[in-house]
Amino acid sequence: MEFIRNAWYVAGWSSEIDQELRRFTILDENLVLYRKSDGAVIALEDRCPHRLLPLSLGKRIGDNIQCGYHGLTFDCSGKCIRVPGQNNTPASAYVEAFITFERHNIVWIWMGDKDKADPADIFDLAEFSDPDWEAHQGDALHLKSNYLNVAENLVDPAHVSFVHPTTLGNSASENVPVHVSTEGKVIVAWRWIRDSEPIGFFKKFGDFTGNVDRWHYYYLHLPCTAVIDFGSAPTEDAIAEDDRNKGVRIFALHFMTPVTGGYTIDRWMHLRNTALGDEEAAANMDAMFRIAFDEDKAILEAVQQEEERPAKRRPIRIAIDKGPMVYRKRINEMLQLERTHDVASDPSPAFVYHD
Amino acid sequence: MEFIRNAWYVAGWSSEIDQELRRFTILDENLVLYRKSDGAVIALEDRCPHRLLPLSLGKRIGDNIQCGYHGLTFDCSGKCIRVPGQNNTPASAYVEAFITFERHNIVWIWMGDKDKADPADIFDLAEFSDPDWEAHQGDALHLKSNYLNVAENLVDPAHVSFVHPTTLGNSASENVPVHVSTEGKVIVAWRWIRDSEPIGFFKKFGDFTGNVDRWHYYYLHLPCTAVIDFGSAPTEDAIAEDDRNKGVRIFALHFMTPVTGGYTIDRWMHLRNTALGDEEAAANMDAMFRIAFDEDKAILEAVQQEEERPAKRRPIRIAIDKGPMVYRKRINEMLQLERTHDVASDPSPAFVYHD
Amino acid sequence: MEFIRNAWYVAGWSSEIDQELRRFTILDENLVLYRKSDGAVIALEDRCPHRLLPLSLGKRIGDNIQCGYHGLTFDCSGKCIRVPGQNNTPASAYVEAFITFERHNIVWIWMGDKDKADPADIFDLAEFSDPDWEAHQGDALHLKSNYLNVAENLVDPAHVSFVHPTTLGNSASENVPVHVSTEGKVIVAWRWIRDSEPIGFFKKFGDFTGNVDRWHYYYLHLPCTAVIDFGSAPTEDAIAEDDRNKGVRIFALHFMTPVTGGYTIDRWMHLRNTALGDEEAAANMDAMFRIAFDEDKAILEAVQQEEERPAKRRPIRIAIDKGPMVYRKRINEMLQLERTHDVASDPSPAFVYHD
Repeated sequence: MEFIRNAWYVAGWSSEIDQELRRFTILDENLVLYRKSDGAVIALEDRCPHRLLPLSLGKRIGDNIQCGYHGLTFDCSGKCIRVPGQNNTPASAYVEAFITFERHNIVWIWMGDKDKADPADIFDLAEFSDPDWEAHQGDALHLKSNYLNVAENLVDPAHVSFVHPTTLGNSASENVPVHVSTEGKVIVAWRWIRDSEPIGFFKKFGDFTGNVDRWHYYYLHLPCTAVIDFGSAPTEDAIAEDDRNKGVRIFALHFMTPVTGGYTIDRWMHLRNTALGDEEAAANMDAMFRIAFDEDKAILEAVQQEEERPAKRRPIRIAIDKGPMVYRKRINEMLQLERTHDVASDPSPAFVYHD
Repeated sequence: MEFIRNAWYVAGWSSEIDQELRRFTILDENLVLYRKSDGAVIALEDRCPHRLLPLSLGKRIGDNIQCGYHGLTFDCSGKCIRVPGQNNTPASAYVEAFITFERHNIVWIWMGDKDKADPADIFDLAEFSDPDWEAHQGDALHLKSNYLNVAENLVDPAHVSFVHPTTLGNSASENVPVHVSTEGKVIVAWRWIRDSEPIGFFKKFGDFTGNVDRWHYYYLHLPCTAVIDFGSAPTEDAIAEDDRNKGVRIFALHFMTPVTGGYTIDRWMHLRNTALGDEEAAANMDAMFRIAFDEDKAILEAVQQEEERPAKRRPIRIAIDKGPMVYRKRINEMLQLERTHDVASDPSPAFVYHD
Repeated sequence: MEFIRNAWYVAGWSSEIDQELRRFTILDENLVLYRKSDGAVIALEDRCPHRLLPLSLGKRIGDNIQCGYHGLTFDCSGKCIRVPGQNNTPASAYVEAFITFERHNIVWIWMGDKDKADPADIFDLAEFSDPDWEAHQGDALHLKSNYLNVAENLVDPAHVSFVHPTTLGNSASENVPVHVSTEGKVIVAWRWIRDSEPIGFFKKFGDFTGNVDRWHYYYLHLPCTAVIDFGSAPTEDAIAEDDRNKGVRIFALHFMTPVTGGYTIDRWMHLRNTALGDEEAAANMDAMFRIAFDEDKAILEAVQQEEERPAKRRPIRIAIDKGPMVYRKRINEMLQLERTHDVASDPSPAFVYHD
């Protein structure tokens, strides 16, 4: 599977990376991640250029890594600084190093052309620093699914009525059309369901006594970050579309990390403008999210298995697919652009070991 | 693996199919099977044409199926009757439907050209309705083996001497030649072993005091149904070949369902002209069949593994292989016929998902 | 993977082979091994030429094997001597037989051109029969690794400093260069570490009070036998390189059997000139070897996994790789020689079963 390389991906929650040498697989590449003694996150190619042993099986010598097979030692830039048994270190003795950036307890990584890496491009949200909001990290959901199908799911408000009928959707929204627009690198798919029974999530966390106006805004930040802005307000308040902060409002964030062509990690968290400081409410919300996201997992993994079988005819597209279709189109454009303009890519074919 | 499509296959025992949506794989195709409220068995392609989710993961709305991802709903003919979020249902929104037929607590399915499906062609046996006989369903034996090798085993009386020495064969039959004839779509391979010790099965169920005349008739109804007619009578009775009802006579029926090219389900049952109404005897017979068929399973799965390895030379054929050889020849003729005459087959190459 | 066929390989310890029919896989070929009633080891192709059932699933009739499916019977030369149901045995009814040789409780097998099999070529060591030495068989270490990487490890004195720091190496040897020479079919890689702390192994088994002179000689007998001659003597004794019997000296023998292209069995044992007759010391030494060889296993299996992935660039070679590099070169020469001169090889392409 071909991946977009010139993009910031989430490597992990900050809590997943410490002084130990740990392997992470991102865009089908194996990396060793660890923190230097000063806390900075280092990401190196996890394969010694000599006999190919993963460096994550070696050991730290200060901030450097010594390979566990013959002791070749690499500094944080990936440069080999020692080859036991000889005085020189050949120029070809190096591992690739990757740029990382940490913010809001999230570690981002840049897998592409280093000249194009700009931390200003990293996803951020004003609400992370807003005292009226509170952020709460959830889990890392492992999905045996390619990331494109995960992303489709996250720019698709229509599925909640059928996949999450007890938590994030209900039958009131089944036939409501979806609106889609794009703003730069963000695709937005949304719909409002006015004057209907609250969904399970807001029955539990909204204290609503009557019908509500409910919204679902799916913001897909290309290529792999999704913000689901959903919430409800009493129908009697008749709030305007731009006045969503007047209701109970939740942002469910999903950071998709393509691991391989058939495996994706979805690290999810939420921000909320309600129950501030209430850890129990946060835990209860996450419990409800887990129910919903496990429902997605079951579906996405079944779809992946079907896609791996031969098919008799092309799948069909329907009206509510507009978000997913725009997403696929934009991804293909980005891939096409990288194919033609990325001077950093290696033109030589991959070398495969055979005996 | 190429399968014969214009044939009736057993989809399952009647007891395996109920109101639940269940996936069955037949001829490498995934189907969802369920009973309508009137009890009729419905068989549909188990894959939504939209996002490919198996319909068996959806839910029933009356006799129809609603897909679990976006709610597309299909009636019992496979036609899409609802696409949430839009008013029309595109013509390409359908799943394939398959013809089924139920008799003697067995559900048959037709996977080929619908115009050629004729229930009159379905295997039947007068003894199912004969008061002097009793039928008893056994198990569904799962075999990691292609169906051709399973079928060979079921048109091969010679193997019982070596594979089933304690149940269905003994050393008396080791060197007895096998006769083979064909009658239309039935291949018969048989032999008589006169004046010898009873086999284990008839020691237990025959009450014989001395030597017996024993027969094994293997009827292979092309492509996938086998009737093993075996029995014994006291040698002193000197029964004629056509007088087998005078002895203790058993029909072991095997309905082979090719699941994939390397997996077959053999649903087996027996009919007997002895111990009528004796459920304990029936259970004891099945216990002995289980011993024997597990011996076949061990051999067929080992053969499958060997066939998947490269070989240095072609396997040899010997005199007792006449039944299997006729079987292979007939299967190849049937496949050839379908290749050249089946106008219902789809001429376009299979579409495979890639990203 | 292409293997050298004209060579003696270890099939197993003598204790692994008895009267039972057992499958062994060597050079990606499945064999059935068993002892005749006179104790001689028979090795036959483990696949009946009729329906391909492994003969190891059949049963012994005296010294012969009867196939478990239809009773074809093969003698110890692989010739079919009985086909039930017919009087003749076709010439094509045979299995390949392999030459074996047993000595020092080790069973060797010749997988190549029979005319070239000469037991005089089998690895031997005078110390097996020397009263000043004692031999002790260890284990059969199963490695998910091709044999070439295992062999590299066994002609590479440099890795012990990093892979086995508590048992067979320590930091004193990290930077000591390696010498390599070849003597006929033996590659020798060695180094001395003079005047340093004893390694873990000799702390436990050497009774040394001060610094020692330590040696590691890695003899790789092409293609698959390794003798690691290692030992220590008090530095104050200043022994000469050829005087190693004056110190505490151990031979660790490794017999590599390539099972498949990705799987190798390393049967290892030791000979020692110390603690003669002391079974407890022998067991303690083996316990320490197990720690060390499990360290090798972890590394070799990780390297195998990496080699199976595509690579961006060729691996580098460094100064201490001289032994492994000579080994690879010699193996390639031997393979090339067999390709061009082995008249026994089958020129026809392998036959693969397909349906």
